Amino acid sequence: MSLPSLKIALAQINFLVGNIAANVDNIINAASHAREELGAELIVFPELIVTGYPAEDLLFRADFIEEANNAIHYIAENVSDIALVVGFPELAEDGRLYNSAIVLHQGVTLACYRKQALPNYGVFDERRYFTAGNQPCVFEFNGSFIGLTICEDVWQKGIIDAAKQAGAELLLTLNASPFNLGKIHQREAVIYSQVKTAKIPLIYVNQIGGQDELIFDGASFVANDQGEIVYRAEEFKERIGLVEIIDNKPVPGRCVPLYDKTASAYHALVLGIKDYVRKNGFGGAILGLSGGIDSALVLALAVDALGSDKVEAVLMPSRYTQGMSNEDAVLEADALGVKYHTIPIEPAVNAFTGMLAEVFAGTKKDTTEENIQARCRGIILMAMSNKQGKLLLTTGNKSEMSVGYATLYGDMAGGFAPVKDVPKMLVYQLARYRNELSPVIPERVLTRPPSAELAPDQVDEDSLPPYELLDAILERYVEKDQSASEIIAAGFSPEHVARAINLVDRNEYKRRQSPPGIRITSKAFGRDRRYPITCGYRGVKAPKNCMIIE
Amino acid sequence: MSLPSLKIALAQINFLVGNIAANVDNIINAASHAREELGAELIVFPELIVTGYPAEDLLFRADFIEEANNAIHYIAENVSDIALVVGFPELAEDGRLYNSAIVLHQGVTLACYRKQALPNYGVFDERRYFTAGNQPCVFEFNGSFIGLTICEDVWQKGIIDAAKQAGAELLLTLNASPFNLGKIHQREAVIYSQVKTAKIPLIYVNQIGGQDELIFDGASFVANDQGEIVYRAEEFKERIGLVEIIDNKPVPGRCVPLYDKTASAYHALVLGIKDYVRKNGFGGAILGLSGGIDSALVLALAVDALGSDKVEAVLMPSRYTQGMSNEDAVLEADALGVKYHTIPIEPAVNAFTGMLAEVFAGTKKDTTEENIQARCRGIILMAMSNKQGKLLLTTGNKSEMSVGYATLYGDMAGGFAPVKDVPKMLVYQLARYRNELSPVIPERVLTRPPSAELAPDQVDEDSLPPYELLDAILERYVEKDQSASEIIAAGFSPEHVARAINLVDRNEYKRRQSPPGIRITSKAFGRDRRYPITCGYRGVKAPKNCMIIE
Repeated sequence: MSLPSLKIALAQINFLVGNIAANVDNIINAASHAREELGAELIVFPELIVTGYPAEDLLFRADFIEEANNAIHYIAENVSDIALVVGFPELAEDGRLYNSAIVLHQGVTLACYRKQALPNYGVFDERRYFTAGNQPCVFEFNGSFIGLTICEDVWQKGIIDAAKQAGAELLLTLNASPFNLGKIHQREAVIYSQVKTAKIPLIYVNQIGGQDELIFDGASFVANDQGEIVYRAEEFKERIGLVEIIDNKPVPGRCVPLYDKTASAYHALVLGIKDYVRKNGFGGAILGLSGGIDSALVLALAVDALGSDKVEAVLMPSRYTQGMSNEDAVLEADALGVKYHTIPIEPAVNAFTGMLAEVFAGTKKDTTEENIQARCRGIILMAMSNKQGKLLLTTGNKSEMSVGYATLYGDMAGGFAPVKDVPKMLVYQLARYRNELSPVIPERVLTRPPSAELAPDQVDEDSLPPYELLDAILERYVEKDQSASEIIAAGFSPEHVARAINLVDRNEYKRRQSPPGIRITSKAFGRDRRYPITCGYRGVKAPKNCMIIE
Repeated sequence: MSLPSLKIALAQINFLVGNIAANVDNIINAASHAREELGAELIVFPELIVTGYPAEDLLFRADFIEEANNAIHYIAENVSDIALVVGFPELAEDGRLYNSAIVLHQGVTLACYRKQALPNYGVFDERRYFTAGNQPCVFEFNGSFIGLTICEDVWQKGIIDAAKQAGAELLLTLNASPFNLGKIHQREAVIYSQVKTAKIPLIYVNQIGGQDELIFDGASFVANDQGEIVYRAEEFKERIGLVEIIDNKPVPGRCVPLYDKTASAYHALVLGIKDYVRKNGFGGAILGLSGGIDSALVLALAVDALGSDKVEAVLMPSRYTQGMSNEDAVLEADALGVKYHTIPIEPAVNAFTGMLAEVFAGTKKDTTEENIQARCRGIILMAMSNKQGKLLLTTGNKSEMSVGYATLYGDMAGGFAPVKDVPKMLVYQLARYRNELSPVIPERVLTRPPSAELAPDQVDEDSLPPYELLDAILERYVEKDQSASEIIAAGFSPEHVARAINLVDRNEYKRRQSPPGIRITSKAFGRDRRYPITCGYRGVKAPKNCMIIE
């Protein structure tokens, strides 16, 4: 008698939130491919793949939930020669909604598992929508006893053990696990420790694709009962993988090596831009090219995501723009083969200066005049975006977003902010990484002191701590929730800490109106870090009731 | 022997999220007032009053939680002659966080209750932060047995009963219950049915004040054991009320009558503007005055909130602005005693037209040119806001926000959007209501067909269904999550429904970058209705994969 054997496909596929009909087609096509090309007997899809993840408040719509539940019947009726494990929002008879995984085979439901651990932290709001399940689920297929789990389940103690005690010899985990730097290492370490204790092999299938702020990075894998990775799919790519299970042991396959930190950030950003443009139906992207490092990086990312023919750059010099900034911007556009326009902003700035002369009579120049310049650029870029149906990309980085070193409706104007969650020092690393692939950013751009060029001889460090220090302080304050005194105790100067924290505290109102950007850190602004605007909290205490938003 | 008697103060006070030191002062002052002026023996404060509500992700900061817990010790040590019931985020020894109510008397803790029902729907995210308590809490004070509950607890079955079974003869409920139209009636109806069944009197203390999108309306009340309201404090005002309890029965006091729907909306909006300006430290407010109904209403609201000397208006006519629009705008400013400036936008529009002539050569005029006009106005208003430190108010209503009938960075530019959650038909009702108090909006503004005046002879109904129909469709689609077929079945034309729904679906990206506004309906955009931008869901189905965001 031969040992029981089973071929399982891992469907690491890119789905679209809300478009159930398209997702169902995608599921059926993937199942057919897995059966016919790979000889798979069972195919595992990611968490909530029928609706996409996160569908947010679409999950409150009765029509949407009905369509998602009908889709399961449709799939069951239209796939007959392979078993499928599909994630969907299950509407129970009592009206409750579960985050479920259903097993379909030959038109019959073999099992349906309800996710037990519902994450409600960070970017997750699952308790807003779902009721938690409370029992393990094991089904028999071709002689194997297979347990089901969904994402957060395998990060908690006890749920894997319960599946094993219920008879599982092999575990499937359906995931919509969003990327941040180092996340895949964290995932594999968690699975290693959980699986090693429970001594049960595990197949981990993750989504891939960009969805607003989130990137799903794929990197689906298979761990043996010692927790060792014996198969790993690519990061940031669609892939239908296959693993053969013989006698409940996964046969070792190809383990695609992981990117290092900089490379993984770069690929995440490229995928994020590509999917935002594609899934939202834009004809391409445009951006303002200043000659600075941020716009140089965003241009390279956009070209790598969309191709040079889909990207357009606009140079908008003012009286404060140095000659070398324009030269470098032209070099960047040329190096990437991108069409560019040059539109000096002086006529519009002069018009506003004249129009405001009477109401501003007797006042001193301040950031108001700087903001007018930035907003004139915003109008030009938005006009070109509107006229051509191209997405306007903003170029602000996380350091700037943190301290509010940006102009609302000016350089913050745009539909998508690719490097919004990339600290300035990482911007430099990413630029150097890109230049190693092929030189597209002039060396001078990497070495000049950064400047907004909104006033004569202005450089960022006139008003901000040096970026090496600023980024380190921001990581502690914004991402790690450390207090000012903890940060000072770690060796940073009280002046730098006070300056950075005060700016972060006072600029929530700007961030609230910023375009969505790609989350790559463990705490991004947006879904992830949710602060009040009206807020008396100050990380560095000022006298009571002294609360001014600039 | 006389019957046991107890005087309880209801502290319906306005607190500031995040400013623990100021809130503590406020608590101590209120306690002192209640004791000395009212003769109270016990004072009840609202839910989480030490930190303000909602403190959002401040609750993840260890320094903030430590300060809040230290504040309880400080209050206990500094108030000796009255017992206090105070809501705060209790850090338990095991590191868990509870939404708790603590009873302090003479420096001693008499009881500490942990909220059992944690709302995680609508605008609430309490399971993001808190662990749920699991038992009732009853304490004895001056011979009375008093049970504690917090907000959502009394909306659910069983928690009041459990407190009664644990010995409570009187219930206190600490609340941070946000306003929407009709909410106070809903609250009193819920308490009526719950209390009538349990036969226990209840003292309901609510916050008052504006906090970003939320308004807390106060209207604290006391119900007897039949559920009848025997005392009610004002809506939208700070008030330290007093109720005497004799033999566990509340002595009937003054029941302030409730506002009707329009009046309550008006007062909520005034409070919202006042608190946003005050709590964020602005010197006043400015707005663009177009001669249309929306800006006329926002001007009146701003003046009623801040006083006419704190409000400034700007008229920014273009070639498409009709003479009567300017005349009416001037009449409005004069009627309210507001300083205004007139700045025609033509010079800036001409400058941009010239600057873009080359890149736009050969293209047709479209909304791009309309948006440029709106954005020139945005630049002028933001420049004046920046220069003077006054808050720029936007004037867009909910109907416009729903269908995207607004220009990003144009008329949507500003720090606060007072009527963002007010449907157009209610804008008219509010204007008429305000004119009944004193005539400030010319009758012609109330009767002219609404127009954006961005193109010749343009009126809103050229591109939108009539507002009576649009508002009714939007209420069903946005607030009630009805499907297109349900709405059509209710008697609306398929064309109007398709037009309205398509616009709602496609304009999430605009709403995501809009300023915060005041929530007055049961589902506002923002914290309340959370939709993906990248989204294949269409309330009215288009062919598959045909997904364009304009």
